[in-house]
Amino acid sequence: MDRQMPTLEDVAREAGVSRATVSRVVNGVRNVAPAIQDVVRAAIERTGYAPNRAARSLVTQRAGTIALVVSGAGDNSDTAQNAFAARVFADPFFGRAVSGVVGFLRPRAMHPVLMFAETEEARQQVVTYLRQGNADGALVVSTHAKDPLPALLAEARLPAVFFARPALRAHATFVDFAHRDGARLAADHLLARGCRRVATISGPLDIPAGRERLAGFQDGMERGGQPYIPVAEGGFTLESGAKAMRRLLAEHPDVDGVFAANDLMAQGVCQVLREQGKRAPQDVAVVGFDDSSVAVTCVPPLTTVRQPVEEMGAEMARLLQEQIEGVRTDPTSVIFEPELVVRESA
Amino acid sequence: MDRQMPTLEDVAREAGVSRATVSRVVNGVRNVAPAIQDVVRAAIERTGYAPNRAARSLVTQRAGTIALVVSGAGDNSDTAQNAFAARVFADPFFGRAVSGVVGFLRPRAMHPVLMFAETEEARQQVVTYLRQGNADGALVVSTHAKDPLPALLAEARLPAVFFARPALRAHATFVDFAHRDGARLAADHLLARGCRRVATISGPLDIPAGRERLAGFQDGMERGGQPYIPVAEGGFTLESGAKAMRRLLAEHPDVDGVFAANDLMAQGVCQVLREQGKRAPQDVAVVGFDDSSVAVTCVPPLTTVRQPVEEMGAEMARLLQEQIEGVRTDPTSVIFEPELVVRESA
Repeated sequence: MDRQMPTLEDVAREAGVSRATVSRVVNGVRNVAPAIQDVVRAAIERTGYAPNRAARSLVTQRAGTIALVVSGAGDNSDTAQNAFAARVFADPFFGRAVSGVVGFLRPRAMHPVLMFAETEEARQQVVTYLRQGNADGALVVSTHAKDPLPALLAEARLPAVFFARPALRAHATFVDFAHRDGARLAADHLLARGCRRVATISGPLDIPAGRERLAGFQDGMERGGQPYIPVAEGGFTLESGAKAMRRLLAEHPDVDGVFAANDLMAQGVCQVLREQGKRAPQDVAVVGFDDSSVAVTCVPPLTTVRQPVEEMGAEMARLLQEQIEGVRTDPTSVIFEPELVVRESA
Repeated sequence: MDRQMPTLEDVAREAGVSRATVSRVVNGVRNVAPAIQDVVRAAIERTGYAPNRAARSLVTQRAGTIALVVSGAGDNSDTAQNAFAARVFADPFFGRAVSGVVGFLRPRAMHPVLMFAETEEARQQVVTYLRQGNADGALVVSTHAKDPLPALLAEARLPAVFFARPALRAHATFVDFAHRDGARLAADHLLARGCRRVATISGPLDIPAGRERLAGFQDGMERGGQPYIPVAEGGFTLESGAKAMRRLLAEHPDVDGVFAANDLMAQGVCQVLREQGKRAPQDVAVVGFDDSSVAVTCVPPLTTVRQPVEEMGAEMARLLQEQIEGVRTDPTSVIFEPELVVRESA
């Protein structure tokens, strides 16, 4: 491909000023008279000159991109890596986080570089990418409590903001959600509906969001005088929710209310109820968690705890920008509050 | 943040060689004795030196990233832009394409920069980003036939590969799908089941995939002796599919088979059938298109035409790499073949 790009010299000739003046305008150096700046900018427009970002970033020390990393704890092959990427996108959660991040970055002419880090090699690639200055910092969504990436980034002292508090001793900036309070809203709602034989399908108990939603729900039910609640552990997927619901119904056929710790699992619950000829909410009331697109398309539409994932993504990007610009040097945290969205399932 | 990075000088001192020798090894220049190369590489490892990519890309003229662009035809505000990003991610199609692209790039240590271009300003940003050499080329998924981006990229002679043939006179490399043949498979299947009062919900008829799936389905039904088929136009979303199905049933209450031009719309069809007390496939057989995650989670699971979106994404990345490396200079096209996946809905 033949790319004959106009050079700085072409702009200087067009504007009738020196090369150094054009360079000062392009790099945003202040001591150029406004009238001259206008002349140079007009010449840049006429010539179609685009300052080479590689050259400019040698001066500004900024890449103008940030890494958007989804990491796990695996150390397997590239095949596992591809399956990981596909799995991540199958959950509407990730798309919501990305659209929040993009919404913040785009008006600032910054763009996210998408990276998946499920293998040891991929994690090293992320660290090297950042150390080489290809991206100015990282937004990290970790899918596993034993993910080694947060520690690697902290050691390398690279700007980073995490989705949820990372499980490491080092100080880190993160955005999180009041999972316990959210799950208590679910318990209060089922109690207020008059449910008396309630069960719950938890998320994976080796990750904090899974543990906290369960603890919050149990806490709420205890306050309602129901201290013993059947629990089946799920994996945050539709299939795991359906499987857990079959197990629960086999042991407790008279269940009249279920809290599933995310919407995908609640969708699985609704499918099993239909299979077994039970109606939601008349026979069994179902409450989900997230308020993702699934909550709206589920049959029946889900009553659920809203997690404002888009806003959380945007806030992560804002906090990272503060770190990159040196406005904030101490770690900080922002915790988002839950809200119950009542639809048809409970 | 304090980033005391080891320099080229530190590596030279550690290795006991000149700065120029380290530079030659780092930049992959050949005329360095293998033994010296080993010494330098060991010193790079010990010092933790990471060559600055900005500096290196001045030499190699490669960014090492590619832009992954989802573009539309709007020219509205940033608010519209954010809604656009959220809408794109609500369709499982995009996640599948991304996981295919990432699967190809990651083992090559290349990463996609995610860009949304629904506004005029955003489209200019994409072109500038590429002209500045921030990315070596673009993979473009366009959501609208009147999208001006393909023409802008062609004019600027930037390396690009498109998902589906772009509507422009310039020559472009693209990956596409045999939509007509796929829709004919759906028609043949409904005919073979014995459906005699068939209707279809098309995609938007202002985009080629919408038109071609409709034409292919009509073609197949004509060959089966059914030249007049009720058509309702949808918008590839669940809601539009449900709405179109209500319209069809109001006018043709005895319909016994429906082809919806994507799985999301087919899911909407199944919901309306349930609302109206009809069973799929016993009362109305339903065939979708895509074989996305929705096809599996739908109640009942969908019989559908498989579009191998992951493979198509990987192929786009491979074709772009050929362009970037100059292996291929002429435009080319790769068309993927359909396959019918039979589940429960038909």
